[in-house]
Amino acid sequence: MSFESHFPIWSQLQLHQQRLLLDSLTFQIVKRGTVLRGGSSDCAGLVLIRSGQLRALFYSEEGREITIYRLFDGDLCLFCAPCVIRSIQFGVTILAEKDTEFWRIPSGVYQGLMAQSAVVANYTNELMASRFNEVMSRMEQFMWRSMDKRVAAFLLQEASIEGTCELRITHEAIANHLGSHREVITRTLRDFQDAGMVKLSRGMVTILDQENLESLSIGRVIQRRKKGDPE
Amino acid sequence: MSFESHFPIWSQLQLHQQRLLLDSLTFQIVKRGTVLRGGSSDCAGLVLIRSGQLRALFYSEEGREITIYRLFDGDLCLFCAPCVIRSIQFGVTILAEKDTEFWRIPSGVYQGLMAQSAVVANYTNELMASRFNEVMSRMEQFMWRSMDKRVAAFLLQEASIEGTCELRITHEAIANHLGSHREVITRTLRDFQDAGMVKLSRGMVTILDQENLESLSIGRVIQRRKKGDPE
Repeated sequence: MSFESHFPIWSQLQLHQQRLLLDSLTFQIVKRGTVLRGGSSDCAGLVLIRSGQLRALFYSEEGREITIYRLFDGDLCLFCAPCVIRSIQFGVTILAEKDTEFWRIPSGVYQGLMAQSAVVANYTNELMASRFNEVMSRMEQFMWRSMDKRVAAFLLQEASIEGTCELRITHEAIANHLGSHREVITRTLRDFQDAGMVKLSRGMVTILDQENLESLSIGRVIQRRKKGDPE
Repeated sequence: MSFESHFPIWSQLQLHQQRLLLDSLTFQIVKRGTVLRGGSSDCAGLVLIRSGQLRALFYSEEGREITIYRLFDGDLCLFCAPCVIRSIQFGVTILAEKDTEFWRIPSGVYQGLMAQSAVVANYTNELMASRFNEVMSRMEQFMWRSMDKRVAAFLLQEASIEGTCELRITHEAIANHLGSHREVITRTLRDFQDAGMVKLSRGMVTILDQENLESLSIGRVIQRRKKGDPE
């Protein structure tokens, strides 16, 4: 798959704009765990993911962290290059959650395109709005939803991303995604286990009852099923 | 003051774009408490504030509310017309916190300008980024700061907006700004009163010790000063 087929507005660019982009691109492969953007001042360029997974998070002053969104194949990481939009002042850390292959568009080149092309500027607008949706939805969850609902939703999302109910993830990692503490997550997961919804083992959470987890995540009352209860 | 002098990119517009804007504008005055945008589907137009104050908030399913940002004289309310950017899917309620005079630019007209003008599209980008900053900062506060820090910061912000230390505001209203409950706010304010930082009376919070409130809001340790302590 080529850059041209991944970049959504490719066909709406003029020939010289297409050439400029292709000439300035770099293709990179990074290992899982690589920090693509660390502090608020980093601005190496926009990242278009060919394959892999990125995670945008932020840290509290005390070092707690929370995932604010994730990016997948074909997504463009606008906040990898916050300097392309002057008014962006918040700091987000972006790191590779999986080995990731991507094209990097230098910030200056992209800024030049935005300044001359309403198509590129409006595309950027839509990109930012998409991230805005995710942040607002995360904020909503954080503010109004109890931790058990959020953990349930997170497990289901992980299962959907990984395509399996056997999730290799630590309680610590779940806490870091949700801006919580390991102890809180462990307590919640044990409650889920008691209710027959998951099975816990070392470094692993296995979803046993997707339906009840779903009900819980959207706030319905759960039918508790304990060991020994009739099915 | 005219629309032309309030609209930041006026001089960068072409003559026919300026004329189009002027011909489509309406000028309105609304009373405090008026809802400018209620649900996610409202999209009457962008609002440029001549004078007054708007508040953007959202509601939980149970009806709790939280302020996500405020707009003042000269600000443009982009989310008053979410339909101008297709990808915006979250619902924000916008209401007038004070009697407000504004110009309304019809959504279709603004969308047309964005589509043809990189200047308008990039200006819109910067606007959205500014709101994004505010939302991220609110999210950060909500996630990592304790309620006493948030109440302290809110009182100081109110004093700065109103230009007075005598704030006519109920505990309920503070709770609604901060996504909390009245009881929690009352408890926090009483602690502040015990520490000599505020004085409480019916419908009123008077700031007595701005310096200590500031220290508290940014996380420094407070020197408690009780009645009878030497000054």
